[in-house]
Amino acid sequence: MAPTYIVFVGTFVHLPRSTPTALAIHQGALWVSTADGRIKGTDWTIITDRDLRVLLKEKGWIPEDAPRYKSGTRVSIVRAREEQNEFFFPGFIDTHIHAPQYPNNGLFGSTTLLDWLKQYTFPMEASFGSSLPNIPSPRAFRVYNQVVSRTLANGTTFASYFATIHVSATNLLATLCQKRGQRALIGRVCMDNPDFSPDYYIDPSTEDSITLNKEVISYIQSIDPKGTMIKPVITPRFALTCTPTAMRGLADLAASYSPPLHLQTHISENTQEIHDVHCQFPDAASYADVYDAYGLLTPRTILAHGVHLSPDEQDLIHDRGAKISHCPASNSALGSGICPVRILLDKGITVGLGTDISGGYSPSILEAVRQACLVSRLLRHVGPAPEGDEGRKLVLSVEEALYLATRGGAAVVNMEDDIGGFDIGMLWDAQMIHLGRFLPACRYDNGESRVDVFGWEEWGEKIHKWVWSGDDRNVKGVWVGGKLVYGRNDVEGGNRGGWWSWVLSAGVVGVGAVIAFRRLRL
Amino acid sequence: MAPTYIVFVGTFVHLPRSTPTALAIHQGALWVSTADGRIKGTDWTIITDRDLRVLLKEKGWIPEDAPRYKSGTRVSIVRAREEQNEFFFPGFIDTHIHAPQYPNNGLFGSTTLLDWLKQYTFPMEASFGSSLPNIPSPRAFRVYNQVVSRTLANGTTFASYFATIHVSATNLLATLCQKRGQRALIGRVCMDNPDFSPDYYIDPSTEDSITLNKEVISYIQSIDPKGTMIKPVITPRFALTCTPTAMRGLADLAASYSPPLHLQTHISENTQEIHDVHCQFPDAASYADVYDAYGLLTPRTILAHGVHLSPDEQDLIHDRGAKISHCPASNSALGSGICPVRILLDKGITVGLGTDISGGYSPSILEAVRQACLVSRLLRHVGPAPEGDEGRKLVLSVEEALYLATRGGAAVVNMEDDIGGFDIGMLWDAQMIHLGRFLPACRYDNGESRVDVFGWEEWGEKIHKWVWSGDDRNVKGVWVGGKLVYGRNDVEGGNRGGWWSWVLSAGVVGVGAVIAFRRLRL
Repeated sequence: MAPTYIVFVGTFVHLPRSTPTALAIHQGALWVSTADGRIKGTDWTIITDRDLRVLLKEKGWIPEDAPRYKSGTRVSIVRAREEQNEFFFPGFIDTHIHAPQYPNNGLFGSTTLLDWLKQYTFPMEASFGSSLPNIPSPRAFRVYNQVVSRTLANGTTFASYFATIHVSATNLLATLCQKRGQRALIGRVCMDNPDFSPDYYIDPSTEDSITLNKEVISYIQSIDPKGTMIKPVITPRFALTCTPTAMRGLADLAASYSPPLHLQTHISENTQEIHDVHCQFPDAASYADVYDAYGLLTPRTILAHGVHLSPDEQDLIHDRGAKISHCPASNSALGSGICPVRILLDKGITVGLGTDISGGYSPSILEAVRQACLVSRLLRHVGPAPEGDEGRKLVLSVEEALYLATRGGAAVVNMEDDIGGFDIGMLWDAQMIHLGRFLPACRYDNGESRVDVFGWEEWGEKIHKWVWSGDDRNVKGVWVGGKLVYGRNDVEGGNRGGWWSWVLSAGVVGVGAVIAFRRLRL
Repeated sequence: MAPTYIVFVGTFVHLPRSTPTALAIHQGALWVSTADGRIKGTDWTIITDRDLRVLLKEKGWIPEDAPRYKSGTRVSIVRAREEQNEFFFPGFIDTHIHAPQYPNNGLFGSTTLLDWLKQYTFPMEASFGSSLPNIPSPRAFRVYNQVVSRTLANGTTFASYFATIHVSATNLLATLCQKRGQRALIGRVCMDNPDFSPDYYIDPSTEDSITLNKEVISYIQSIDPKGTMIKPVITPRFALTCTPTAMRGLADLAASYSPPLHLQTHISENTQEIHDVHCQFPDAASYADVYDAYGLLTPRTILAHGVHLSPDEQDLIHDRGAKISHCPASNSALGSGICPVRILLDKGITVGLGTDISGGYSPSILEAVRQACLVSRLLRHVGPAPEGDEGRKLVLSVEEALYLATRGGAAVVNMEDDIGGFDIGMLWDAQMIHLGRFLPACRYDNGESRVDVFGWEEWGEKIHKWVWSGDDRNVKGVWVGGKLVYGRNDVEGGNRGGWWSWVLSAGVVGVGAVIAFRRLRL
């Protein structure tokens, strides 16, 4: 019988909404309704199995596999095993990722933004076109399926995707996210300015920039009318690729829906780009002012990068309530610079993390957490030396970077009341992390985990070790809205062994059967 | 019968000694003598199995498992499978790693060098002491074994280790490296200055700094008289922890051997450290001058970091022929700064890469390659903006960073004629990298590799993908001096299955035995 609740038992780690600088670490039980996928209650006094049995009895809950004649509310139980250093953590939120660029991960040579776009990016994105109307290209299916797989396997429960200019491929990405159970914003990229966009990869006309977008919006709203899992996001690529008419039209398009649609674009990533924007829009006071002039700076706008924003631009973005997606791996890989996150946060700007595939080289937000920490430690060496202890203030702690990866990202996509933490009433978008017991990395088997927990570490230290050495091998299960959407081995808490135990059992049964058969003939 | 040669067949990638900016990619066969572990020949015309059979026939070689009555020189064949995107690459050389700090990987919070040493590092290193003379602590065995395992599993065939001040634990590290087959320099750390060294972790006296070192040297030379695998390295920690008498005594000690011993220490990592060195040695012109004054700058000296060296210091280091170990992960993690590698290289200084565990958070030199690329791309934003295209010149390409990880490291440890590349006559210190075929990362199994090769990539692009997304999962086999010292699955080219096939076989045999036994009783 289908369970009414899922009871998660073990260690829960998240960042409290009010204190981004400290981990909240709880041990006990937390339960989620299978009807709406939301957290209904917690009990941090549950330590032993006996405690859990008492809780079940008090609540009138029985395990889902209890005999049929037993009456009570059925619950499923999922454990994070203490002795295996397992814990639950909120799902990661990737606020900026280009799905079609995934095959180019790691391919950027020594280029910087503008030549990288022309040499690597535009040709790859253009290849997602299809010669058949309404039928996406095989490449789109192959690549988009892999992107969703890889991001889920890295614990990303929400992604704000840039697709390509192609309607059918963009619709396919939306379908895949819905089917695979990853929350997403899906954006058809708009680029209609022939001064920068290449002739082989450009919207047919400025008008098409708007109408093709409407097709995508209408498709997404048809398959998910309430926007529970996927929503459209209006996506002008960036100021250089878009005409003023298109930018204004796209802003109006977003505002014409109720509630207004999200918007996403790039801003102030690279110094040459900024220079070119000033040349193309000589009347605008700044790069941010270009977007503001056409109505693109709204409380539902995600601006990727913001590396070189002037104080005035930062103030403007704050005034308009627009958000920043910080993509440190990409900013380092393309030599763009270091976004001064601390300064943005101190101004009250909302910041989340993005992988920026394939300017960034990794689909992992955990890698973005690491890179956010690293570059913040280098900021003191950038530009004029900060006075006194100012350099230290620019540093993001591991805890703050994890906050950006969860609560921060949730606020960037305006879902801070629903995802990013383990507060009662929030959606269970979460991952189970498995660090494992210390096992000597013997010569022929070291593949389980890169994280070595020696046994004397406290929970806070284990979290730091996870951040600095962890990877997808440590992601044991991923849930979105209470549903398991990715899982390895016995994540559902049962007694199943690994696949090899099935092979072994099958072997034993097979041999037994052969021998029994031969005995019968005797 | 033991083979005379090992014939490696497949794709070979290395950096030519003369051109650090381009990969050399060869397809064919390369053979290594099992007697001395050196590369004896290559044939880049071998493409098909038939070509290989012709080569064997021409050379009078027969496979090692050919019937006994067959005559000929026995050879073993190891293949890197083209369809699995496998290739051979020189083993990585880690020119700076603190073995005892390994359990602290990822634990540094938001500290910088000097408080990190006191808060995390000295307490951990001190715990390697033993209450029993000549018996190393259990922790030393556990940690050192894990360090050698993890570094080998990441393709490191040579490591220059800092140990602790403890003789027996340092000797144990030497033994482990020899037994496990990792080439190494092993250094007992010397620190006798009570002004900086803590009272719980300091050499008993300045004289002991020298005599305890002699014990270690004598032990290492007793177990490896020719220094084929392991050699001692004189290791004054850094200027602040050592008295002038100790530094002079250690320099003399190194020079008293024939050939002179290697030396290793730290230099110019952090601005506060540099300031403190100036205060402690007011008569010295610079940090480098301190070491030079006591005879520590030699052609066999490895200087870790060199982040903030003045042009004069760079010239002095170049004049003395000392080498630099660039540790980018550590320099970013501790906020030390960015070492201007291009400037050092242009001056003719020899540079290699180091993990600097646990200032660095990863035992992987591949991670150091990535970080070297990343920070070089940020250099243009550090200090005064470089004019014109100067910023671009500071960038290290993927190829140059791989050169530092192999040829560069080899030159840092004065073994440029023996390791770091695939030239004829060099030692076969190498790794086999397995990228794998493209497999959709389906929901319940994505563990094999993080590198997605879609099939249209050229070899150069595959190498870039490996650098940016690869990890220990891609290291399929590691050889040192022609001997396999780490291997996963069927790396030797035979038909062995994984460990589970042994479990299965054992299960089948066991069940068969039980049933046979019961039948006999009938």
